[in-house]
Amino acid sequence: MEFTAKTIAEFLQGEVIGNPDTKVNNVAKIEEATPGTLAFLANPKYNKYLYTTEASIVLINKEFEIENEVSATLIKVENAYESFAKLLELAEQARPVKQGISDLAFIEESAKIGDGVYIAPFVYVGENVVIENDVKLYPHVFVDDNVTVKKNSTLNSGVKVYHECVIGENCIIHAGAVIGSDGFGFAPDENNVYRKIPQLGNVIVEDNVEIGSNTTIDRATMGSTIIKQGAKLDNLNQIGHNVQIGENTVIAAQSGVAGSTKVGKNCQFGGQSGIAPHIQIADGVKVTPQAGIPNTIKEPGSIVMGTPAFNIREFQKSFIVYKQLPDLFKRVKQLENELAKLKGE
Amino acid sequence: MEFTAKTIAEFLQGEVIGNPDTKVNNVAKIEEATPGTLAFLANPKYNKYLYTTEASIVLINKEFEIENEVSATLIKVENAYESFAKLLELAEQARPVKQGISDLAFIEESAKIGDGVYIAPFVYVGENVVIENDVKLYPHVFVDDNVTVKKNSTLNSGVKVYHECVIGENCIIHAGAVIGSDGFGFAPDENNVYRKIPQLGNVIVEDNVEIGSNTTIDRATMGSTIIKQGAKLDNLNQIGHNVQIGENTVIAAQSGVAGSTKVGKNCQFGGQSGIAPHIQIADGVKVTPQAGIPNTIKEPGSIVMGTPAFNIREFQKSFIVYKQLPDLFKRVKQLENELAKLKGE
Amino acid sequence: MEFTAKTIAEFLQGEVIGNPDTKVNNVAKIEEATPGTLAFLANPKYNKYLYTTEASIVLINKEFEIENEVSATLIKVENAYESFAKLLELAEQARPVKQGISDLAFIEESAKIGDGVYIAPFVYVGENVVIENDVKLYPHVFVDDNVTVKKNSTLNSGVKVYHECVIGENCIIHAGAVIGSDGFGFAPDENNVYRKIPQLGNVIVEDNVEIGSNTTIDRATMGSTIIKQGAKLDNLNQIGHNVQIGENTVIAAQSGVAGSTKVGKNCQFGGQSGIAPHIQIADGVKVTPQAGIPNTIKEPGSIVMGTPAFNIREFQKSFIVYKQLPDLFKRVKQLENELAKLKGE
Repeated sequence: MEFTAKTIAEFLQGEVIGNPDTKVNNVAKIEEATPGTLAFLANPKYNKYLYTTEASIVLINKEFEIENEVSATLIKVENAYESFAKLLELAEQARPVKQGISDLAFIEESAKIGDGVYIAPFVYVGENVVIENDVKLYPHVFVDDNVTVKKNSTLNSGVKVYHECVIGENCIIHAGAVIGSDGFGFAPDENNVYRKIPQLGNVIVEDNVEIGSNTTIDRATMGSTIIKQGAKLDNLNQIGHNVQIGENTVIAAQSGVAGSTKVGKNCQFGGQSGIAPHIQIADGVKVTPQAGIPNTIKEPGSIVMGTPAFNIREFQKSFIVYKQLPDLFKRVKQLENELAKLKGE
Repeated sequence: MEFTAKTIAEFLQGEVIGNPDTKVNNVAKIEEATPGTLAFLANPKYNKYLYTTEASIVLINKEFEIENEVSATLIKVENAYESFAKLLELAEQARPVKQGISDLAFIEESAKIGDGVYIAPFVYVGENVVIENDVKLYPHVFVDDNVTVKKNSTLNSGVKVYHECVIGENCIIHAGAVIGSDGFGFAPDENNVYRKIPQLGNVIVEDNVEIGSNTTIDRATMGSTIIKQGAKLDNLNQIGHNVQIGENTVIAAQSGVAGSTKVGKNCQFGGQSGIAPHIQIADGVKVTPQAGIPNTIKEPGSIVMGTPAFNIREFQKSFIVYKQLPDLFKRVKQLENELAKLKGE
Repeated sequence: MEFTAKTIAEFLQGEVIGNPDTKVNNVAKIEEATPGTLAFLANPKYNKYLYTTEASIVLINKEFEIENEVSATLIKVENAYESFAKLLELAEQARPVKQGISDLAFIEESAKIGDGVYIAPFVYVGENVVIENDVKLYPHVFVDDNVTVKKNSTLNSGVKVYHECVIGENCIIHAGAVIGSDGFGFAPDENNVYRKIPQLGNVIVEDNVEIGSNTTIDRATMGSTIIKQGAKLDNLNQIGHNVQIGENTVIAAQSGVAGSTKVGKNCQFGGQSGIAPHIQIADGVKVTPQAGIPNTIKEPGSIVMGTPAFNIREFQKSFIVYKQLPDLFKRVKQLENELAKLKGE
């Protein structure tokens, strides 16, 4: 689809500076933009790009003062970043919406299917499943017996949801994620042969949660593994059995939370971080990438680093000395020599 | 299904204290239990919960002495933990068993299919595949040409087994795991362009192995990558080409074992640990979470920590000083100053 | 298939020493070989195995001097390693080639399908997709709307390619990999509730790229995430939105590159390594396993280690002292005591 500067300015209640008939069909970052795209300028650090960008249209803040010649058509708006975000959402909504139930899907008769759903070819829907209104199940999704998927959630291609799990409203689960596989529970006998501990609980994903591609969330041994509302999990995360992830907590890719740990709300975990089993993490805790948390963190808002992790400032101070250790080592040797000399004298 | 205290006590050969008609339909941890559930008490650390639990029935050890009022119906048994485990297994076995071969599965004519199998819709079974008795293949499983899956194994939804691989008896493979993809082998030419080294071997998974969701196990370049009997691999593990994992070795989630490494039996690897290629790990070695093992470990039963990893006690001693490094640094400076003064005098 | 020493020697233009009718049907490493297999000897370190190997045929270099009795039939060739590689490729090519379009695949009418393709049962091909000549789509592959897969590429079972992405020529993508899922982009509002930032870009995988099992590559927010030609990604890698991976760069398993980072060409990343967002990595940089790169690396060919990573030699020097920290600590204490004594005198 193509839009003119005039149309966009009207939609954003902005003012066109330049040719109102300039057309764009895509968006871009101002520093990478090519002809035919629309970009925005909000961060003063990027001001210089306004005069060199190849974007056809640039959104700028109303009060921005143009200092050199600009080839792009400009649209002055109240808040360039927010206007741009509005256009992105509009573009997203403009994508064709999939609907309807494919003849090539397999749906058990006992399943209850809402209105406005999309059930793609090769989707499997088990017994007593509830698929609420406006849910989207992309190709190769597996929804096992007794699962509920609440309204307006999207399960992308190849998502697997084991029996008895619950997916909340407005969730987005990305391709290949696995919800509800068995927790890793085994009891060794006297010969170190492991006997499987049955995993009888489930996973509850609350509303407005997003789960990344190929992330795995294990069912509880008993009770529920719970991902609370608004939490965002990136790709390839591992969430162990009986874990709780708090509201609006964000976990970057390839991180793991081990069994029975409770994570508070509004936490932020960097990529490849790891949290030990059977501990508590207070609200608002920040964990740096690759950090490993061995113990409960009680102080809300703590920031931790390292493996085993401790306070970020303490870590950084120690790390500075770590890099100088060979020198420190030499200096201690030097001191020993000098002291020996002194004593020898 | 609902059970009364009387029925459960008879099954466990225990004694009811309280109302024998109390009913339960689920199990729970004693500290999280809700009405209608059955819990157990074995660890003295949890004794206090007996007097506050909302569980309707609690299993306790025969010799346990009740010190306060208890609202739950109790069942005294020889060993509360084992009795509980027995009930869990019973509950697991009570789940309806899937059977039959779906018309919506694709099965090559040359495949040999045993009795009592479950082959779900959208399963693909290739040429000359052998599926032994009581095997379960859930939706979207891919079993490529010349694969054998031995009796009573379960491949959950979306498991992919490449050609020529062998899955042993009584194995459980969780959703999305990939068995037998190509090892990561490339030879650079004079321009740093990589030529693929053909990966002609296979993967052999022996009996009683459990493999977690989205775990990947690469085929051998030549010969076999082998997961020995009773080994348990958690989710999102990576096992490289030509690796051997020993009997009853347990590997927690997101760990990786690089190509051609041989891991002994009864080892325990923590989550996110990494093992270098072309090394040997002795029997019974324990690796802490996030540790990285660069070299062969010859001493059976070693426990190692850190990256690069070394003896856990040595690591912990060094780590204590690491946290004090800024102070140590100051003290060395102080010593230098004082010594300079002394010498100046 | 079986081959005689005579046939193999003719193909390789080599000379048979021993029985020209010796037959083999597989290849093996010389130290693990069993009867019926062919091995090679190139590395002098392995010379001793020639006299004990059970291989039926061994390729050796023309100039190799036999010192003891050998039971295997030998074939003398110009370069034993290269001859062996040639045989491996021959064996690989001898595997039956899948072709044809299954009736059990779902293909939108608007898709354009080339010649010589393989489209397996349960493959989904969306609207306006272009599948060029000789492409192979294995069972349960998902190719969403407007995707292009260029000639001679292979998507193994369960690969998922989101809408608008482009896969180059001669690529191999292993089972369960996800290309083009949404980047991890959210903007917190004043209540710490996250609003999703639409992810409108795509992923471009250039020619001759190999991507491992269950690896995830996110689409760009705007523009493209790009994997440049000849790059090789191992299993379970995570590539964030708007990342660029340079030509012939190799990334071992379970590594992650965070959003908007640009990685140069000919880099080598060890397993479980992590690269921060919004940075640049120069050409030819080597990252050791589990290392974490927080900042831009400008020096081509740098080798870095640790978390946060720095120059490998500096790291190793510091690490040697780290292991001796408890001793260093004692020595500083000792110095303090002795100095106190000296001053006291």
